[in-house]
Amino acid sequence: MIETRSDVTVECLGQWGGDLDIARAAWISLGHDADQSADEPRIRGLLGYLMKHRHGSPFEHGILSLGIEAPIFVAREWMRHRIASYNEMSGRYTRLLPVFWLPDADRGLVNAGTSARPRLERGTDDQRRTANDALKAAYTGAWDAYQTMLAAGVANEVARAALPVGVYTAFRVTTNPRSLMNFLSLRVQDASAAYPTYPQAEIDGAARSVEAIFAQYWPLTHAAFVAEGRVAP
Amino acid sequence: MIETRSDVTVECLGQWGGDLDIARAAWISLGHDADQSADEPRIRGLLGYLMKHRHGSPFEHGILSLGIEAPIFVAREWMRHRIASYNEMSGRYTRLLPVFWLPDADRGLVNAGTSARPRLERGTDDQRRTANDALKAAYTGAWDAYQTMLAAGVANEVARAALPVGVYTAFRVTTNPRSLMNFLSLRVQDASAAYPTYPQAEIDGAARSVEAIFAQYWPLTHAAFVAEGRVAP
Amino acid sequence: MIETRSDVTVECLGQWGGDLDIARAAWISLGHDADQSADEPRIRGLLGYLMKHRHGSPFEHGILSLGIEAPIFVAREWMRHRIASYNEMSGRYTRLLPVFWLPDADRGLVNAGTSARPRLERGTDDQRRTANDALKAAYTGAWDAYQTMLAAGVANEVARAALPVGVYTAFRVTTNPRSLMNFLSLRVQDASAAYPTYPQAEIDGAARSVEAIFAQYWPLTHAAFVAEGRVAP
Amino acid sequence: MIETRSDVTVECLGQWGGDLDIARAAWISLGHDADQSADEPRIRGLLGYLMKHRHGSPFEHGILSLGIEAPIFVAREWMRHRIASYNEMSGRYTRLLPVFWLPDADRGLVNAGTSARPRLERGTDDQRRTANDALKAAYTGAWDAYQTMLAAGVANEVARAALPVGVYTAFRVTTNPRSLMNFLSLRVQDASAAYPTYPQAEIDGAARSVEAIFAQYWPLTHAAFVAEGRVAP
Repeated sequence: MIETRSDVTVECLGQWGGDLDIARAAWISLGHDADQSADEPRIRGLLGYLMKHRHGSPFEHGILSLGIEAPIFVAREWMRHRIASYNEMSGRYTRLLPVFWLPDADRGLVNAGTSARPRLERGTDDQRRTANDALKAAYTGAWDAYQTMLAAGVANEVARAALPVGVYTAFRVTTNPRSLMNFLSLRVQDASAAYPTYPQAEIDGAARSVEAIFAQYWPLTHAAFVAEGRVAP
Repeated sequence: MIETRSDVTVECLGQWGGDLDIARAAWISLGHDADQSADEPRIRGLLGYLMKHRHGSPFEHGILSLGIEAPIFVAREWMRHRIASYNEMSGRYTRLLPVFWLPDADRGLVNAGTSARPRLERGTDDQRRTANDALKAAYTGAWDAYQTMLAAGVANEVARAALPVGVYTAFRVTTNPRSLMNFLSLRVQDASAAYPTYPQAEIDGAARSVEAIFAQYWPLTHAAFVAEGRVAP
Repeated sequence: MIETRSDVTVECLGQWGGDLDIARAAWISLGHDADQSADEPRIRGLLGYLMKHRHGSPFEHGILSLGIEAPIFVAREWMRHRIASYNEMSGRYTRLLPVFWLPDADRGLVNAGTSARPRLERGTDDQRRTANDALKAAYTGAWDAYQTMLAAGVANEVARAALPVGVYTAFRVTTNPRSLMNFLSLRVQDASAAYPTYPQAEIDGAARSVEAIFAQYWPLTHAAFVAEGRVAP
Repeated sequence: MIETRSDVTVECLGQWGGDLDIARAAWISLGHDADQSADEPRIRGLLGYLMKHRHGSPFEHGILSLGIEAPIFVAREWMRHRIASYNEMSGRYTRLLPVFWLPDADRGLVNAGTSARPRLERGTDDQRRTANDALKAAYTGAWDAYQTMLAAGVANEVARAALPVGVYTAFRVTTNPRSLMNFLSLRVQDASAAYPTYPQAEIDGAARSVEAIFAQYWPLTHAAFVAEGRVAP
């Protein structure tokens, strides 16, 4: 039997650095003249200045390492962000689990916008039923085919071709605050953004979880990012 | 009705640079003293020296731009190579086509090795029939579900969750000779390689097509790469 | 005797790609539906749209390879741009030439602004004479020391420590249009820029030469970059 | 008066991750099947396997942030390593200090090898005296010129052109273990290396300091790196 879920989970597996480390990296440009004391208003002012003027390099001195569980279609979008380190569950080395994505009750299913600027609406109950039923049928059929092949001794790498991009995978991503802000600028839809973006709901939700972790460890950097229209420096 | 194929196509869409450009980039380290004349034995000697001693940076001055048609499971492996530029057919902006991967008659289906060092064998006729039938059944079911959802007005981005990683996608990849050699060192299995690698057959085949194009435009660089055990500089 | 100059030279050594290649890379996201015909208004519209919405990846499919002659202080700023390939004249493998940078007659010498937002003014004739004389004296002394050490058999790599960052070097840089636009957004001061920048005059001048070459090969991309406030996508 | 020194200092300013984090990143490829317990022989075996087979990506999940004081000629070599984050003391925002590099008593001054494979020998007492005297003379002259210009109101960015690449700068570098190993493979000369390298003594010394810090935080990774001939995975 297959299992379904709708969430993307984001777990913090490691972290180093904070607002002060970013400030210190920036202060080194002033060399011996820099007073590197940790006075919050001063750090806040500096980080705001760096963000506003797109002095991005100091924001690289930090790291966040995350564990993600998501459908393959989300992993595919995520891994297009190249300034990051990834390792993912392998469909060659191991067998995938029968866990598949279904839209949850609040997820818009019908695009009332354009392809470039999608605006997803709930859809009718019939449409929701159709989607749920069709996805479950495809997932069940794929899982049966996968199991049949594996039982017959077919290699993992061949059998997995049957599995849908809605199947869950697990991966680890490690990156720095600057690259994180670029990710957030593109993957979180926010009315206050200087550059609107139209991410798919699933990566948008995951990116919001990432943003909450980011805001916790780098509160002043995050505040400056928001204040400057969510433009990555 | 669905269509099946087994190949990965690699088309050269653009190219700049050659062995001489790499040599010239290296010669600049000698500044005004360098005689930059295009004498083949001299270029050959220089490129061999650079390759042997892992002076990699001169090999970045060039570009190859390729168009690829491949199943998603190949695209996923390919795009893990981050020093390259990619654009891919979108399952949100457009609808995918009913074209799916099947193993061809020569493709090993049964792993007689380990997961880390797979050795794929032909398998029995029964196993081959099982794989073909199961894949086709999964593909057909997935395509039916996809079509049903789209016909009901469900958004592309939701309906695509049903599609398998065996469905074909199209993407463009542009990169330089140094990054290309790293790709080849990991994605072509070759008995002469200093570091053995165990790529899946489909990306191995595609990488061989890439290597043929690479060897055509950078023959001396390619010869040096092979002579030095296929270690990317 | 030493020689002095004030310019930074930028020579185009190789190039591939144009506006149409960028458009084609973008169109692949539409897969089979895309009409890839080279209709200028259509390309112009697409590139403007991509630029405005910061869809940056299609702008990576192209290459420009440049030869630069510049003082070391310019090379140092340039090579902080990491998404590019570099090779430079080596002070270990070869000996540098007695060519040094002097401000030309129009170059502001006195900072009437702040360190973060410098505004360089001409300065008095006395100040200009002081700068010229002091630089020449330092250069001459450094060159004498360099020659003395080399004549005594001291290794290049030790003797070069005497040479100033005002000495000329030569390097080659190869990169793609997206990275180029990032370079231009930071290294050309322009009143129309959405994000003001305060580059040193010498790299600003070199970047303007780069921009002219860029605009020649990618006219529509360049126009879109300018129209969108010189923000790299 | 000028001050001279011969050392390059390397200070650890921040760190996250260890051998176990690298192992865990690798184990995720096995998904749910992986036992991620921290058993040292098992981690050691895994890291050795990854290193031997050049599975490099797991080695990216970690960070080391270092503060460096070095002559500009060392900073120039260091910053050619692009998979790292840098901030450096600015000769525009601040004034440099009168601290300059001199070879110490053990530093070879005369190249008895070739330019590509230098072998530095001590040199005669005369040669050592010549080098010391010439460098000091050049440094003193450069510093005088710099001070004269600054006193006359000439901008930092112009006056600094007089300063030699032997002057000390300060910078911060943050990177991951994989990129660190690449740096070590090229910047530490070691008889056991599979690929010999010929770094200048000053960056070689600094890289050895980096290696000691690296070995302290990632002892099993470092041991595997050494065991596999110092080839970065």
